Amino acid sequence: MKLLAFETATEVCSIALFDNDQPVAVVEERVPRKHAETLPLFYQELVQKTKFDLADLDGIAISIGPGSFTGLRIGLSFAKGLAYGHGLPLIPIPTLLALLSGVNEKTGQMKMMLFSHRDRIYHQDFEFQSNKLIELTEPAAVAWPNIVDQFTNYDKLVHCGCESLLENGVKSIVPAVPSAVLIGKLAVRDYADRLIRKPFQLVPNYISPFEFSK
Amino acid sequence: MKLLAFETATEVCSIALFDNDQPVAVVEERVPRKHAETLPLFYQELVQKTKFDLADLDGIAISIGPGSFTGLRIGLSFAKGLAYGHGLPLIPIPTLLALLSGVNEKTGQMKMMLFSHRDRIYHQDFEFQSNKLIELTEPAAVAWPNIVDQFTNYDKLVHCGCESLLENGVKSIVPAVPSAVLIGKLAVRDYADRLIRKPFQLVPNYISPFEFSK
Repeated sequence: MKLLAFETATEVCSIALFDNDQPVAVVEERVPRKHAETLPLFYQELVQKTKFDLADLDGIAISIGPGSFTGLRIGLSFAKGLAYGHGLPLIPIPTLLALLSGVNEKTGQMKMMLFSHRDRIYHQDFEFQSNKLIELTEPAAVAWPNIVDQFTNYDKLVHCGCESLLENGVKSIVPAVPSAVLIGKLAVRDYADRLIRKPFQLVPNYISPFEFSK
Repeated sequence: MKLLAFETATEVCSIALFDNDQPVAVVEERVPRKHAETLPLFYQELVQKTKFDLADLDGIAISIGPGSFTGLRIGLSFAKGLAYGHGLPLIPIPTLLALLSGVNEKTGQMKMMLFSHRDRIYHQDFEFQSNKLIELTEPAAVAWPNIVDQFTNYDKLVHCGCESLLENGVKSIVPAVPSAVLIGKLAVRDYADRLIRKPFQLVPNYISPFEFSK
């Protein structure tokens, strides 16, 4: 399978080309609030590196959220533009699942947390069984202080971008690193289930960081 | 000339197809803060209406700013995606010029004003001579109260979205209506001068509404 993959849900702008189900080229960098300017340049770099032809792709995989409101919109708008031109399907991949999938040691009950702003985060619970991450809850937004006392319920806590919150007495939270490679791998695995042939109405999974719960 | 044209710099989302230098189909609507969701749907509608083929286009014309930060980024990201897939050039059109070009009675010294937020606007001075709008100043951001007393210097004042500010004793300001048709017309006229063959580095003409001057 030949795919283009985008991860723009965090401060990292990442783009990858997959060929024969494997990542063959990646361009990525941390570019806070610069996705609109950066993504087309990274795309250009990938084209120059690999000389791939959009017409040969099986689809474009994108990180669908939750995450950066603007990053998600820029990524999806650009991906739609590329896709429409060649009738390519999009493969939307849940951002928190992708982030967690990149963590080396997966085990038991796991919580994935992604920084939003101030003390707000996006979080989702997973269970790792039979070598697969099962989503136990939907992704949601929450204020960090409201979930800290539940941390003991989990076998593993994973975060992305929550460094400023960790000082509140919490240790042993593993960092996750955003990458289009993780998006592409899940898209290869779940292609048939997640593929959207006519993605005109596809929107990011925004979750208002103000709709936080206990 | 066959062009696709986008206007997403204001609350209006507008997309038009030009064939033989003329607009042949337009989809547009006022959709405040909904450009990311709306633009792909309007594109779909235009495709269904006209069955045009991207590969046949001479380029994609876009409103380049100043205007809505998010609207501009969404429009440009989507346009780049479409353009890259077929090696199409982009034709960036100054937003205030396009807005003013749609006003019926053009005459003498003219000021075009576009609402930004609170009492901030984008503005630019033009002179209408030999049936053409000449840009006298660069577009800039300003606080409305700081320019009201200069209004008498102009033969005609034109605004877009400034209704909430007009009550401050100012009359006879003509409204301008954003449309991709205006963008496309200027792109047809100025194609050779404004065309960018490899628009990877093209960015909107943001102007921080906080950099306001007297």
